[in-house]
Formats: sequence, structure tokens, C-alpha cells
Amino acid sequence: MALVVQKYGGTSVANIDRIRRVAQRVAKTFDQGNDVVVILSAMAGVTDGLIELAHKAAEEPAKRELDVLLATGEQTTAALLAMMLQGMGYQAQSLLGHQAEVVTDCDYGNARILEIGAKRLHQLIEKHTIVVVAGFQGYDIKGNITTLGRGGSDTSAVAIAAATKADVCEIYTDVDGIYTADPNICPKARKLKTISYDEMLNMASLGAKVLQIRSVGFAKKYDIPVHVRSSFNEEEGTMVVNEDSGMEQLVVSGVTLDKKQARVTITKVPDQPGIAAKIFSPISEAGIIVDMIIQNTRQGGQTDMTFTVPKIDFKRTMEIAGKVADRIGAEEVLGDTNIGMVSVIGVGMKNHAGVASVMFNTLARENINIIMIGTSEIRISCVIEEKYTELAVRVLHTAFGLDADE
Amino acid sequence: MALVVQKYGGTSVANIDRIRRVAQRVAKTFDQGNDVVVILSAMAGVTDGLIELAHKAAEEPAKRELDVLLATGEQTTAALLAMMLQGMGYQAQSLLGHQAEVVTDCDYGNARILEIGAKRLHQLIEKHTIVVVAGFQGYDIKGNITTLGRGGSDTSAVAIAAATKADVCEIYTDVDGIYTADPNICPKARKLKTISYDEMLNMASLGAKVLQIRSVGFAKKYDIPVHVRSSFNEEEGTMVVNEDSGMEQLVVSGVTLDKKQARVTITKVPDQPGIAAKIFSPISEAGIIVDMIIQNTRQGGQTDMTFTVPKIDFKRTMEIAGKVADRIGAEEVLGDTNIGMVSVIGVGMKNHAGVASVMFNTLARENINIIMIGTSEIRISCVIEEKYTELAVRVLHTAFGLDADE
Repeated sequence: MALVVQKYGGTSVANIDRIRRVAQRVAKTFDQGNDVVVILSAMAGVTDGLIELAHKAAEEPAKRELDVLLATGEQTTAALLAMMLQGMGYQAQSLLGHQAEVVTDCDYGNARILEIGAKRLHQLIEKHTIVVVAGFQGYDIKGNITTLGRGGSDTSAVAIAAATKADVCEIYTDVDGIYTADPNICPKARKLKTISYDEMLNMASLGAKVLQIRSVGFAKKYDIPVHVRSSFNEEEGTMVVNEDSGMEQLVVSGVTLDKKQARVTITKVPDQPGIAAKIFSPISEAGIIVDMIIQNTRQGGQTDMTFTVPKIDFKRTMEIAGKVADRIGAEEVLGDTNIGMVSVIGVGMKNHAGVASVMFNTLARENINIIMIGTSEIRISCVIEEKYTELAVRVLHTAFGLDADE
Repeated sequence: MALVVQKYGGTSVANIDRIRRVAQRVAKTFDQGNDVVVILSAMAGVTDGLIELAHKAAEEPAKRELDVLLATGEQTTAALLAMMLQGMGYQAQSLLGHQAEVVTDCDYGNARILEIGAKRLHQLIEKHTIVVVAGFQGYDIKGNITTLGRGGSDTSAVAIAAATKADVCEIYTDVDGIYTADPNICPKARKLKTISYDEMLNMASLGAKVLQIRSVGFAKKYDIPVHVRSSFNEEEGTMVVNEDSGMEQLVVSGVTLDKKQARVTITKVPDQPGIAAKIFSPISEAGIIVDMIIQNTRQGGQTDMTFTVPKIDFKRTMEIAGKVADRIGAEEVLGDTNIGMVSVIGVGMKNHAGVASVMFNTLARENINIIMIGTSEIRISCVIEEKYTELAVRVLHTAFGLDADE
């Protein structure tokens, strides 16, 4: 008898009929001889509706109260599924964040799970009761309701899978797995059977928005196999697993695209110790997340500092950078929002030389100029002109042998 | 500095604009130098909508899960009001049932409050924070969410007023107080300045649905003055108080009407010890609430037993009574749904003879036949033909000097 944790996203529980399909799927898994813990999101659109309502109540709604409001969304679906399963003759019970003992820090709206008590969860599982946990929510040590940020139910699911020592954590969503590239951009993209936690971490942060990134970190830490699959069909999806556990032997597993970054360059920065801190401290204090940073040495003890920030923070960043440039005696600040970042990702890279040169040659063959380059152990990213990004994804996908068979 | 508990019903928080008016009223009370605890209902219609949703999920929704679902209604309004007050520059915080430590029994859907810890409430009040408590909800000792039944927010409010030793509990509703009769039936009805707990208990159970009856019991037990008033104007409403505290000197405070009862008569019941138990035990075991019971002695050791039950339970009651009649050797079972009960209520009755004869004479003068009579210390009720009930209310209202001045 296995313990299966299943998480269903907002589109999978968007209305009563869809919740009924979820109930049937849960029941089927139980009937196959498994214990089942279900984690639910709010009905699609409900969370956005509540946020809209909050903004009618106050210009900047207090974060603690916003979490109290938002938590009702998952409370609703959890209660509905539990009563539906009971109506079908199954033992079932809903648990809210505090009842499932999901303890978080008190960073309202973006809380992190500190621990999961799971005492009540264990008691219910022992009695073979199907437990339906409201995702996305927890509580801090003072008993205040917290929420885990966009996609937080994924993290709820993986954390609860870890706390209950589940055999697998299934994430049901409206896509049927992880693809080698975005099929809307690259028609030859194909579904991966497996992907490693580290690859997924790189994919998620680069725009393949299937799993909340924190959930992947949790899964990696506790070695929980995560099965990403569609709630609308019975097909196997993609297993996110430890890279040692019999994965496909691919050098590159995916090509991703991020068009949400903008580039900022500060020219003729005096090249002296501590200068990077002087530039990036005020930016991070403004809550702006810097992704890629490139520093080129120039003549005469001066350097150019180039970095990327989210496009929505571009204007603020330019203002801050302007002040910093004056203070440190740099020449000028240049910016560009017409860029995109194309990345190839794969744990296979660790043991394969030449991935970078294949990437650069492929882009050169299409006359695509590379503006910035950044690399990590399992990723190579190139910043290029925005208008070339879709083309770049397609040619790289082909170059690394990822195209689906005709 | 006084501590004021204010409860706002569903129509008072029906949408964002109305909640804003509530916020302004709360703020005004606070600005006048009071500490304020607010108890809210769900937006009008929301609870019914959720019940409908639950019945789409399951034919007979599990009661525990239904309470989890329904509790979201008050959670929503409490969070919205708290963030609105904060947006207006006030210190405010929402508390859910379990956070306000509203401990109940585990009779889901109709739970009774056992105690209120109120530790956190006290801490917040000491800091002059406006506390917004989600009404209608509590939790049992196992940590399950419970709800207090229709109108339960009234009881939440009075119980919290008792736990915090509040100076007054204000119930804001869509009527502006307690009237001597239903103004829709009796145009000359007038608003009472004061009414005693006991009168209110009798009024509530007889159809003047302004306060949940349990809340009045609570108020009486802890001697909490309850001010029933309109959320749509600034007028004083009706104070529900201890009968010794300077009330108006009326013999009769109100005339009420209950058309929801039906009459059942079992004829020629053998008049022997234990016969009443044999008749009423199977009825109460079926969950049917018997209101009035009249027993007339007849010749030959036989008696007629007449009683009233809610009209919705009439058919079931007739079936049960039929079986009981066979078993105990009674003659037959007669029933009548075309009845209504008219009552006059007043603590002044205790010290005034002749109230009953005024009532009977007044009805006789209009040729209204009295089918059953029941009395208590502060109430006289007559069951009459349904078609005469409105007329009866009006003539009794005049006879007891309750008519408003022209």
C-alpha cells in the first residue's frame, strides 16, 4: 500500500463538475489500494477576484488581512471535495493550514514553510481516511493565517509529501508534463519522461511556469519524486527526480526563454574593491531582484558593469543606477528593454564539453548577436535582441537533438 | 472609556460600499473614545449560495465539511473590514472563531458556545486595536470548525461582549428596533425603547426574528445590555435589558403572530399514567419540536390530547401519531394546518390581573373562536383560525393601548 499525495491546481477545480472529476480520480487512486492525501488550490480566478475585492476595500490592503481573505479560496474547494468524497461513500476529511500544522514564518503573502507537524494527518492516514488539505496556506507561531505566494499549493503538496513520507507527489495541472521548450514557440517540442530537480529549478526560474520553484527545492531536499501530469487525461506526465535515478541520457533537456528582463549598463565604473556592493546594495534595498551580472575589465582601472532586472522594475532601477553612477564617479547609465534571454539546460552538460560552442555557433549561423553570456553548472544563457528570441529557441532545440520525431 | 461590541448583519455588509459605511460607523465610535470589537456576518446571500453549492457537491453534505465551507463567508467580511479600517489609518485586526478562542460543542451546523478564551481579544483591546471577529463560527476541542446556526452571529456578539465585559452590545440590523407588533400587519405598531430579556425570549420564539434566541439567553445570563438598532440611520433602537433597569411601564409590550404551527389532536386517549410519554417520545425522537400541549379530560377515563408542531413536520407527525394512536388504543387522529397563534407578551402581566380576560373579550367581540389557549408567566397565547390572525393582532394591539399616537 502506497501513500500518494495529489495536488490539483485552480483549473482542475474550477467548478463543481471539475471537482467531481477530481473526486473520481482520487477515489480511483484510493480503490487501487493507496492512501491518498489531496492538496487543492482555489477555483481558477477566485484568488484574483479576492485580490480585486481587497483593492476595493483599501488602496494597499494590509498583508495580514489579505492572507485571511485569500485563504478562503482553498478552504472552499477543500470542504467541497471532502463532502463530495463522503457523498460517494468514502471516508474523507478536510484540513486547513493550521489544522494540518503547516507552520510558516510570518512573511504574509509569501511565507515559507518552517515545519509541518502532521500529527493529525498521520492519525487520519492510519485510519485510511482520504485527507483533503487546503493548499497555499499555513499559520505562523502566533496563530495568524499566512499564504505561500503564487503557486504556493505546489509547495504545500511537496512539503506535506515530505512530512508524511509519501511515495510520490502528483501535481495535476492543465499541461501534461514538462516540455523541452514552449510548444507555442517551438512546435517540435516534446514532453520529457524525466527531469532532474536541478534542471527543473533552472527551468522554473527561467519561465517554464509549471511548478512553484520553492516546491522543487523542497522536493530535492527531501528527495520526493514529483509527477507533473494533466488532470484532463490519464497519460503519464513528467517525473521530476534525483538525477541519479535512471533519467533519460540527454545532454540538454530543455531550451527556455525569458522576455521579462531588461538590461542596465553602467559605463566607466572605477574598478576598486567594494564597488559592486556600492552599486547593488541600493538596488536590492529597493526590493529589485537582479538576475545576471557581467563585469568587463577596461583600460585605465575602469570597468563596465552590466546586469539584468525585471522589466517592471526597469524605470526605478535606472533612477537608482543614475544616482549611484554620480556618487561613484562612473560615466553614464545605459538601458535596454528590447532583450530576451535564451537558455539551454541539462545536467548532461557536466560531462559534455562543447555545449557552449554548439550554442554560440548555432546563434551565429542565424546572424543573432549575443549581448551577454551567463553560465552555471547545468545552464548556459545568452541575452540577445528580443526580436530573435523565438527563432533562437527553435534553432537551438534542433541543434541539441530535442525535436520530436515527425 | 467604554468597551463597545458592535454586530453587523448580512444586509449591513452586503457589498463593499455597505462595508465602508460600517467602517465609518466603527471609526466614529472609536473616535468618540471607545474601544470597539466588531462582529460580522457574511454578506447577505453568501451563506445561502454556499449551501446551494454544497448541495451540488453532495446530496446530503457532511455537516463537518459544510461548516468549513460556510465559515468562509464571515472570514471574508472580517478580513475586508479590518483592511478597510487599516486603510483609513486605524489599528485593526481580524480574528477567526478559533483565533478568538470561541470554544463550542461539536454539534456541527448548530453548535453551542461553551466558553470564550478571549486572551488574544484582551491583548488587542488593551492596545486599543479595533478587533474584527468573524461571527457565526467557533471550534470544538479537537480544533474542528463549527458554526452556530442561523443568526449565530448575534450569539457570537453577545458571548464576546460577556467575555470581554463590554459595556454594551450593539446589534446593527436592517430594522431599527423591536416593535410592539409586525408593522406589516399592524400599521399602528410602534418601536419599543426598552424590552426585557424575558419578553424578548418570548417574542423571538414567537416570530419576531430580530435576534437569535440563544443570544438573548446569553445576554440575560451575563446581564449584557443589547442595543438593537438600524445600520442605515443614527436613531436609537431598542435596548434589551434586565427588567429591573428602568423600563417603560407597560402591561403588555407586544403582540406577536406565529403562522408556522399546525394542530394535531388525538381523541379518546386512555387517561392513564405515562400516556403522555408514550405519545410524545416517538415525536421528539423524530426530531420534531412540539410547542403547545393541551389535555382535556373527558368522560369514562378518556382524554383528548391536542398539540402543535411546525407545519413542515405536520405530515410526519400525523403518521407517527397514527401509529401511536393504534398502539395505545385511542380513537382517531385529527389535524389542522389552517391555524395561527396570537400572543400577548409583557412582564407587567405578573402584577396585573385581567390581561387574559381582556384578550378573550377582545377576540370574542370580533367573533373569533379560540381553539387552544396556552399561558406562561409573561405570555398568553391563543390558537385561532388562520384567516383571523392579522385582524386579531390589530384589535389586541389597540385593546392593550399599544397603538402609536397619530
